[in-house]
Amino acid sequence: MSRLTKIFLDDFGVFLGRKRNRFVVKKGEEKHEFLADDVESIICTSKAVALSVSALSLAVDRNIQVIFATYSGRPYAVLMPTVMTGSVRARREQFLAYMDERGFILAKSFVKGKIKNQANLLKLIAKNRKQRDPSLAYFLYRSGRLIDEVYERVEDEEGSNIDDKRLDLMNLEAEAARIYWRAIARILPEGLKFNGRETRGARDPFNAMLNFGYQAVLFPEVWKAVCYAGLDPYAGFLHADRPGKPSLVLDLMEEFRQQVVDRSLISLFSKNVIKPEDVLAVGVEAEEGRVLGKRVVQSMLDALLSRLDRAVMFGGRRGSLKSFIYSQSRNVVRFLLRVSSRYEPFILGW
Amino acid sequence: MSRLTKIFLDDFGVFLGRKRNRFVVKKGEEKHEFLADDVESIICTSKAVALSVSALSLAVDRNIQVIFATYSGRPYAVLMPTVMTGSVRARREQFLAYMDERGFILAKSFVKGKIKNQANLLKLIAKNRKQRDPSLAYFLYRSGRLIDEVYERVEDEEGSNIDDKRLDLMNLEAEAARIYWRAIARILPEGLKFNGRETRGARDPFNAMLNFGYQAVLFPEVWKAVCYAGLDPYAGFLHADRPGKPSLVLDLMEEFRQQVVDRSLISLFSKNVIKPEDVLAVGVEAEEGRVLGKRVVQSMLDALLSRLDRAVMFGGRRGSLKSFIYSQSRNVVRFLLRVSSRYEPFILGW
Repeated sequence: MSRLTKIFLDDFGVFLGRKRNRFVVKKGEEKHEFLADDVESIICTSKAVALSVSALSLAVDRNIQVIFATYSGRPYAVLMPTVMTGSVRARREQFLAYMDERGFILAKSFVKGKIKNQANLLKLIAKNRKQRDPSLAYFLYRSGRLIDEVYERVEDEEGSNIDDKRLDLMNLEAEAARIYWRAIARILPEGLKFNGRETRGARDPFNAMLNFGYQAVLFPEVWKAVCYAGLDPYAGFLHADRPGKPSLVLDLMEEFRQQVVDRSLISLFSKNVIKPEDVLAVGVEAEEGRVLGKRVVQSMLDALLSRLDRAVMFGGRRGSLKSFIYSQSRNVVRFLLRVSSRYEPFILGW
Repeated sequence: MSRLTKIFLDDFGVFLGRKRNRFVVKKGEEKHEFLADDVESIICTSKAVALSVSALSLAVDRNIQVIFATYSGRPYAVLMPTVMTGSVRARREQFLAYMDERGFILAKSFVKGKIKNQANLLKLIAKNRKQRDPSLAYFLYRSGRLIDEVYERVEDEEGSNIDDKRLDLMNLEAEAARIYWRAIARILPEGLKFNGRETRGARDPFNAMLNFGYQAVLFPEVWKAVCYAGLDPYAGFLHADRPGKPSLVLDLMEEFRQQVVDRSLISLFSKNVIKPEDVLAVGVEAEEGRVLGKRVVQSMLDALLSRLDRAVMFGGRRGSLKSFIYSQSRNVVRFLLRVSSRYEPFILGW
């Protein structure tokens, strides 16, 4: 499988140009060229960057996504081709499904995927720590088993409409999350002072890293997969409608967060690639408005992107983690169009 | 009413930068600044342009649309904020409406708007030519009356589902179009050799001008209005679903084509602003891939943009033509959400 590149434009004074079928990234005397066929997306997290329109049009021609994000990773804009691939039929069914059993089944599947991956990730880490730290391993394994019990209760939920059942599913999800993040806190170095999960705006090291990973890497990938499959990113099932909230992207992200992001970021510490005290930006970087230091961002990107390319087995098929983001989006469509009678969440073993 | 600016980036070697809350357009020594509050959209029809990301982020912050189009005016990409204004509720109803009477009523209204504006534009021109050319005026007036008869037949159409009635509506629309364009051909200078309407790819002067006007000016305006109202641009009623086709934008454009574009372009000839022989690009410009000469494009833009700002009366309210594009999009939403029991197409008198 050929590895596709993401071009990250994350530095002051960078220019993205084009030379025939190549992207040229210039900074001062430095120059890198990328064959368009090898590029999968362009993510720009610095505002001190300039882009040539011919480079943007090359990206559009080749279906290469161009994302603009803040330093903390939150995407604020996407370059959208005016001609969308994917049929409007999928979106028709997506809206209809909200009112029938399909919406409930999808929401339940997303929660099941999330919870089972949480349990399996804890058990996997437990297995790896068994020799070194048996009591931690036992605690992690037990936490995984507790989450399995929550999973069973999700499994037992029945319904014919998501609006009636959202609160129940959300409560079960929150119950599993409490167990999960308490266990993760025990795995992480104490220097991170991780006291549980915080979403937007978090300025403590590990939450800032998680937010960056979810927003700058997982979100654009799922967004693209959802749009390419012809779905409306704003019309989710588990996540309730709220103006401006890309609920379906958030929905589908649930089954990928742990295996793509959490696992990669935890291993940056267990492999000593970065140290707790090096995570947050200081000095000039902090003044630029960055929460995370540039070197940490680079380490995270390396880890997350190679994780996305990692081959895994799911549903009897071998493929990169990334390829399953796309196939799961298409599976949502197949389920919505009733081509397939089931939707199986993406779950990895341990 | 304050006039808002569109920034057109249509020239070789232009750079769009930012200085605090201003856009800065530079070409060599030339430099223009635009206060962001005065800018409504940025349309880039040249590939030899560079943009700073901080300018793009200013545009996103201020809800200023950024459109990338070919020389002939066809938009190929739009910068989309990831947080959309407008509620997903409108899109839910839009998809549901396809299957009930609302879809038929909207499609019929779009055709009614288009046809009545065609008739009224011919009658208006007839009125203006009465002294100078009575026999042409009579022909134009008669053509307008013939279209009125087609309008009555559209009015008589009844249905409860657009799929059943699309062909009937389309046939009536085509009948009116034949009468309309035959009359327009008589108004235009003979040097244009206009033999009827051709859409994409037309290389004869007037069709190329119409395509530019519809695509580069009307389309982005309606696209923006539709998206801002929270509607899915790809899910139309009159225009059938086809992957990648922005059918709802095409639908809503119908009631604005004549009064915004056709009328402005015809008057460029009747006021002798441009001559038939000056329309098509020649020499270097043609080699760059342009169909239309730069000076003609500039004249068209001036005419079309000031036309959009022109105050008119509709529905008992005075506003710019452009403001009615936005209010008609919101009226579609009000009708879809059943806040309003009717949808009145935008029609101007003569």
